[in-house]
Amino acid sequence: MTRQAATEMNLNFASDNTGPVAGPIMDAILAANRGGAMPYGADPWMPEVRARLREMFDWPEAEVLLVATGTGANALALAGLVRPWESVLCHRIAHIEVDECGAPEFYTGGAKMILIDGPDAKMSPDALAAALAGMEGSVHNVQRGALSLSNVTEAGTLYTLDELAALTDLAHAEGLVTHLDGARFANACAALECTAAELARGFDMVSFGGTKNGCMGVEAIVMRDPARLREMELRRKRAGQLWSKHRFLSAQMAAYLRDDLWLANARAANAAGRRLAAGLERLGAELVHPVQANMIFVRLDRDQHARAMAEAQFVQYDDAPRPLCRMVCDFTKTGAEVDRLLELVAG
Amino acid sequence: MTRQAATEMNLNFASDNTGPVAGPIMDAILAANRGGAMPYGADPWMPEVRARLREMFDWPEAEVLLVATGTGANALALAGLVRPWESVLCHRIAHIEVDECGAPEFYTGGAKMILIDGPDAKMSPDALAAALAGMEGSVHNVQRGALSLSNVTEAGTLYTLDELAALTDLAHAEGLVTHLDGARFANACAALECTAAELARGFDMVSFGGTKNGCMGVEAIVMRDPARLREMELRRKRAGQLWSKHRFLSAQMAAYLRDDLWLANARAANAAGRRLAAGLERLGAELVHPVQANMIFVRLDRDQHARAMAEAQFVQYDDAPRPLCRMVCDFTKTGAEVDRLLELVAG
Amino acid sequence: MTRQAATEMNLNFASDNTGPVAGPIMDAILAANRGGAMPYGADPWMPEVRARLREMFDWPEAEVLLVATGTGANALALAGLVRPWESVLCHRIAHIEVDECGAPEFYTGGAKMILIDGPDAKMSPDALAAALAGMEGSVHNVQRGALSLSNVTEAGTLYTLDELAALTDLAHAEGLVTHLDGARFANACAALECTAAELARGFDMVSFGGTKNGCMGVEAIVMRDPARLREMELRRKRAGQLWSKHRFLSAQMAAYLRDDLWLANARAANAAGRRLAAGLERLGAELVHPVQANMIFVRLDRDQHARAMAEAQFVQYDDAPRPLCRMVCDFTKTGAEVDRLLELVAG
Amino acid sequence: MTRQAATEMNLNFASDNTGPVAGPIMDAILAANRGGAMPYGADPWMPEVRARLREMFDWPEAEVLLVATGTGANALALAGLVRPWESVLCHRIAHIEVDECGAPEFYTGGAKMILIDGPDAKMSPDALAAALAGMEGSVHNVQRGALSLSNVTEAGTLYTLDELAALTDLAHAEGLVTHLDGARFANACAALECTAAELARGFDMVSFGGTKNGCMGVEAIVMRDPARLREMELRRKRAGQLWSKHRFLSAQMAAYLRDDLWLANARAANAAGRRLAAGLERLGAELVHPVQANMIFVRLDRDQHARAMAEAQFVQYDDAPRPLCRMVCDFTKTGAEVDRLLELVAG
Repeated sequence: MTRQAATEMNLNFASDNTGPVAGPIMDAILAANRGGAMPYGADPWMPEVRARLREMFDWPEAEVLLVATGTGANALALAGLVRPWESVLCHRIAHIEVDECGAPEFYTGGAKMILIDGPDAKMSPDALAAALAGMEGSVHNVQRGALSLSNVTEAGTLYTLDELAALTDLAHAEGLVTHLDGARFANACAALECTAAELARGFDMVSFGGTKNGCMGVEAIVMRDPARLREMELRRKRAGQLWSKHRFLSAQMAAYLRDDLWLANARAANAAGRRLAAGLERLGAELVHPVQANMIFVRLDRDQHARAMAEAQFVQYDDAPRPLCRMVCDFTKTGAEVDRLLELVAG
Repeated sequence: MTRQAATEMNLNFASDNTGPVAGPIMDAILAANRGGAMPYGADPWMPEVRARLREMFDWPEAEVLLVATGTGANALALAGLVRPWESVLCHRIAHIEVDECGAPEFYTGGAKMILIDGPDAKMSPDALAAALAGMEGSVHNVQRGALSLSNVTEAGTLYTLDELAALTDLAHAEGLVTHLDGARFANACAALECTAAELARGFDMVSFGGTKNGCMGVEAIVMRDPARLREMELRRKRAGQLWSKHRFLSAQMAAYLRDDLWLANARAANAAGRRLAAGLERLGAELVHPVQANMIFVRLDRDQHARAMAEAQFVQYDDAPRPLCRMVCDFTKTGAEVDRLLELVAG
Repeated sequence: MTRQAATEMNLNFASDNTGPVAGPIMDAILAANRGGAMPYGADPWMPEVRARLREMFDWPEAEVLLVATGTGANALALAGLVRPWESVLCHRIAHIEVDECGAPEFYTGGAKMILIDGPDAKMSPDALAAALAGMEGSVHNVQRGALSLSNVTEAGTLYTLDELAALTDLAHAEGLVTHLDGARFANACAALECTAAELARGFDMVSFGGTKNGCMGVEAIVMRDPARLREMELRRKRAGQLWSKHRFLSAQMAAYLRDDLWLANARAANAAGRRLAAGLERLGAELVHPVQANMIFVRLDRDQHARAMAEAQFVQYDDAPRPLCRMVCDFTKTGAEVDRLLELVAG
Repeated sequence: MTRQAATEMNLNFASDNTGPVAGPIMDAILAANRGGAMPYGADPWMPEVRARLREMFDWPEAEVLLVATGTGANALALAGLVRPWESVLCHRIAHIEVDECGAPEFYTGGAKMILIDGPDAKMSPDALAAALAGMEGSVHNVQRGALSLSNVTEAGTLYTLDELAALTDLAHAEGLVTHLDGARFANACAALECTAAELARGFDMVSFGGTKNGCMGVEAIVMRDPARLREMELRRKRAGQLWSKHRFLSAQMAAYLRDDLWLANARAANAAGRRLAAGLERLGAELVHPVQANMIFVRLDRDQHARAMAEAQFVQYDDAPRPLCRMVCDFTKTGAEVDRLLELVAG
């Protein structure tokens, strides 16, 4: 009863956050809804979440805080990592720069984003080194602070483990702390066929996403150094991000991690993404970035676009003759749904 | 299936936020979990919420934003009402002052809380007038800003409609805007036997609570003047309080308002509170504040306290010979559960 | 040439900041105005300032930053001492609370002032202990931070060295850091007949004032622990409080400290204050606080008030039948000027 | 006595803020140092400043606030122009971006700098239009706010009046407000041979510099719309930028404006700059930007550099084989001083 009926087709490809809650997660929410539970994280499910993430990340001392939104997770994590007069080095189109209405600036007390260019929403070590070389470090300048990377990136591409290591090693050597925006952490692990520990290895704090991959609204902030916990707890409360009925965050996250549901969902989403990308290529549509996970950036002909938009939902970015569009496959997208979208495009 | 089994007794009286999600609200969450839905408030349930709150408040132009926590709602509302160099006049033990870790200061950019004393967590118009008289208004001083009242108060007491009107009329006459912390708005309406419109009448912005009264985690910020909407939307996003899978906030709130579930739940909670208070009085326990809704502040004998604590959960504030305790009845508390707590106290 | 002509009477008693710049300080400004000097504190006078303050405070490792305003000094010092979710315990009428338009909240990122009552603008150790006892320290509450005392106080009274030690010892024992608002540090030393080191002993950071006592506009932030310097330098720059032509701050402060000009000026101001207070008492005026330095709070009869206001400047606080007034003697106030004011009052 | 002895050579070319205070300004400071004066801007010199700037800018209703530092002036002005979720569009190397340690972010509450490229520290209307086209304006994005231009630019170059008009017209048409960082406003007027009114024409708020051009430390914030005054006054106080002995700011600025001293000083500085640039060109040094005012960016041979550095002060930016250097002529730089520097370079 908690799953959507298979006969209804869901052609909403606007984002993975348009998708529903996964059955096991909804079941866990229901199961948690029995009687009383102490609030604010003192519920029975939170220890399981903490233990499981420590194990997954191979960070035995790590601490974990749950919040309900990805922007909240990123902004809190960055606020815990940098002081107001420091900086966050990130890609020019990082989510924290372009899609959070300045939440990092708000939470950090005005730290500065230092933007680094690079194709497909990825930066190279050389570009990072050049950005650092341009930071003078006198009292007149904002100071070094954190490197923040996204994997999966905003362009739906991936850093390989080697690429990540090169960047985080450089960052640490240069005195930066490191943050991973893992709103699509699971999709990255699935696509890279790596463990969570491998993906997280070079980072000091990780925003581990759940919402886009089958949760209702929960993200874990995983901090390698437990000494950061107390400040982060206070920041979370002060930000209005501490849930009173916290059991419903814990229960979601526990179910998401149990039996590697997070990974299974991501594999399904990525598979749908690959199927969609392959189909679009066959139809001659122009893929703007390599499709490496569940996000497709594509230019469609006007008529392709019009036909698809008539029945399906996706994002259109411009009014070019061949408009740039984004199509995202959430974990529920079936082959039939993907194929129906392709039929619409094909006409 | 979504309700807790009747045979389990829930003796958690620590707060109304230790309670479960009401059946109809959980059903609504399940019902909303079908296929795709546009994110960020563009879901099909939000118009119903907006329309219903406009009707309930008799504010035909009002705008509504949903967030997941009470602290988030209060802090956002205050940030929309006052500038950083202004002030928020509130009771010395208002939740915004003592229980939000400075969230109002964070969200407002450092506005100052001006604290007003008064018995039972209520301020008088004279006390408000005196506080205003003490504010000089020169460029050296923080400026007048907002009056924020709580109803139900932090002491579990109530302002009557006349008392509210006297305060909000004075506030408006003195150039303040007004905010109601309505984390227990429903309990106040139920206890005062008034309409939502009557309770909200003198306020410019209301935090209309759901979480403590049967929702999973949703609060509505209701703003009388729709011109405030755009800024508030931006503030909400910037604060990381904008949900992507917003349908699960909307669906909760829609179900909470439908068929006056909010009022029915509050009546149940208040009735349990009255039953508990009456029983405690019969046992000779000292009620510290008048019990007017669902919260009881009581001093117990050491042995009463020890017996009750052995089986039930509630809050203990001090180590006095007769410790000060808080017991809160959520909407699910049955007569049997209340009576069991009384038995424990009685010994 | 740099001194005011002796024949002009200056009956401005509104504040000690209405007074002129002392001759030796103006001479030092002139002397510094030769050729080029490196900016931002790298001028030849700053080492003398640092060395002299280290010696005076008997803090051999102390670091010193200069800024131009007292509010800037206080707010910067507090920002260096407390985090945004912490608190500053201070007297209810401390300058940082009532006369800085929320600058401490702005600079600290929203730390909360915890107000402590007490007669004559002084708090007792018991009152401090009670305030601390009321701070719960859970994640819902703002946390302990700093104790900030003013000496001379806003009421023109003094803490004795023993009183200071009792408060700062308690503060340190309770985990607080300590700040002294020494806008009138010199007046306190002069009145207490103590050394700077004795006055500063219990404090971690001191705002050492110059502006009210003969400088044009310079205050020293003296920090006992040099590890605080780097952050404070960055905060100063970020606050727009770092002077480019810094030599004119350094030169003022150097001259102020040289030959104990600071102490001589303060003695003169205090002597004028005593003379004025004694005269007012002889005239039957009601002194509202003990006069222990250079500030007099007095209630005058209506006709006394009217006569004095016709020719002299001072501050009137209310419209009571016997209005409350403040008269402050800056370091230039002569016996003749004080006596003229007394004549006006006497009629 | 207030001027430096002509026989001492000042070879400090590090910045125009290494220069002394102009004689007439020091004389005005001395003249203001007579007896008492009401604080905080209520001094007798401020009306003259206000009237003169209104006249100069041809803004009859303009309001003026004085502060002591350029960073303070810029940050306050921007805070008055944009809300925290808005943006400031400026050149990538604008002073507000690279040399203020994030003061604009601090004062604005975290507004975002949107950086625009262009040669010689200037942006084109096309580049501005492109930047605006990239700003989506949804609730997820920071919003449009202000355009901030510098004239003279950080590269020592100039926008012509036509170039300014094209940019400010575009900005206003696109809904932005406009700010001029006029730290070297006088140098720009002198070089463009235009009036202050012409230079300020397209701007809503101007930071009108004094410190770099002969003042001790004073900058005027000139706001075209007087309705902005009250908020700006409160922001100034809250920022610790309101001087108590304000007469010493007013007196400086009054003297600076009187008899067009500001313009005469700037002409002298620019003339020295031209002389230095011409001499360097004759010596075959590479001028990196057109020299249009008093700042020279030049690459010197290693031996040229070493000889010059041995006796003169200037800024070295890199360790390239031909290091990039900045030489700035303040208003006192004589032909003899410039020629001596050239001799050193020539060897």
